[in-house]
Amino acid sequence: MHLIGIAGHSGAGKTALARELAATLLGAPGDVLSLDAYYVDRSNVDPAARARLDYDGPDALDWELLRGHLRRLAAGRPVERPVYDFSRHVRSPRTERLVPGGAVVVEGRLALYDAAVRALLGTRVYVATDTETCLRRRVARDTRERGRTAAAVRAQWEATVQPAFARWVEPTRRHADLILDGAEPLALLTAAVLRRIGRS
Amino acid sequence: MHLIGIAGHSGAGKTALARELAATLLGAPGDVLSLDAYYVDRSNVDPAARARLDYDGPDALDWELLRGHLRRLAAGRPVERPVYDFSRHVRSPRTERLVPGGAVVVEGRLALYDAAVRALLGTRVYVATDTETCLRRRVARDTRERGRTAAAVRAQWEATVQPAFARWVEPTRRHADLILDGAEPLALLTAAVLRRIGRS
Repeated sequence: MHLIGIAGHSGAGKTALARELAATLLGAPGDVLSLDAYYVDRSNVDPAARARLDYDGPDALDWELLRGHLRRLAAGRPVERPVYDFSRHVRSPRTERLVPGGAVVVEGRLALYDAAVRALLGTRVYVATDTETCLRRRVARDTRERGRTAAAVRAQWEATVQPAFARWVEPTRRHADLILDGAEPLALLTAAVLRRIGRS
Repeated sequence: MHLIGIAGHSGAGKTALARELAATLLGAPGDVLSLDAYYVDRSNVDPAARARLDYDGPDALDWELLRGHLRRLAAGRPVERPVYDFSRHVRSPRTERLVPGGAVVVEGRLALYDAAVRALLGTRVYVATDTETCLRRRVARDTRERGRTAAAVRAQWEATVQPAFARWVEPTRRHADLILDGAEPLALLTAAVLRRIGRS
């Protein structure tokens, strides 16, 4: 079974690309394995303390479970994915079955971080999108889907998301065998318009 | 006021690009003028007959209203956009105000079709995405957002969407001063994966 890993910054466009790739390869709205499902269960931590934990670095993920699942998928066997409850920072009691098709697409900021995971990936992709575009998308998503203010999203970005990216995500770019620009059409278009309206 | 028109096939990626461009230029989740709001009001047509009308060609749009609004926006003045009720094929009694910022982004399959509209556009963009990708996105959107079956979406595509594209949309590509590939990262990625798994 061919496993494809897609890593990159928050807001780089990993999920959209992963979904479209899965749909292209498998011929139907594709099922994607997201690293976000593999956050460590914090049900043993006092609820008030949970919000203060670090969720941006590699220690936030349950690598043992993820490696086991990817090994099963690589062997063509189905897995029962965990379901993570982001509002409470705990793993839900239910799971979601993933039956591998002709290929499995795995996406997450840290998809190229772990050596054992990388060894299971037949294609390693890094989505390199400029940080301004990533932040803009993150603000748009979090204000729309999570009811947060733009100022709060920007503050969290500066305090934790961007430092974690620089420390843990960006260095994994060298493991990619394919680097894609997740904002190339946008960048071309923006540059063309700015030239025309004289703000370049 | 600089007006930017973004045309292309259904599913090409016009809306996402238009929203991101507006956000990039205006610094906030951008407001985009969509040609879909300018469908001709069919409240004078028998409801049973409305569903059989042609909604894919240029006659489905209220060009006079659109031209008037674009002229106002080009002059820096706000407009009261119509709101179209797709379930009943009528124009809603309410409107939505659009106050032009530093630029206005106009998107729709036929954004480059009308000569008077084109003359008002400072930047004319055509999003050229391969038809397979367009259809895949249309199926994903219509099954998710409109509760339709994939088979029904494909049947409509073959019967009306694709012929209307070939007749009315694709020829407007020559009016563009910027042609973007709305699936370039996806196309690169798909080709790379197919090479690896020996299905190229």
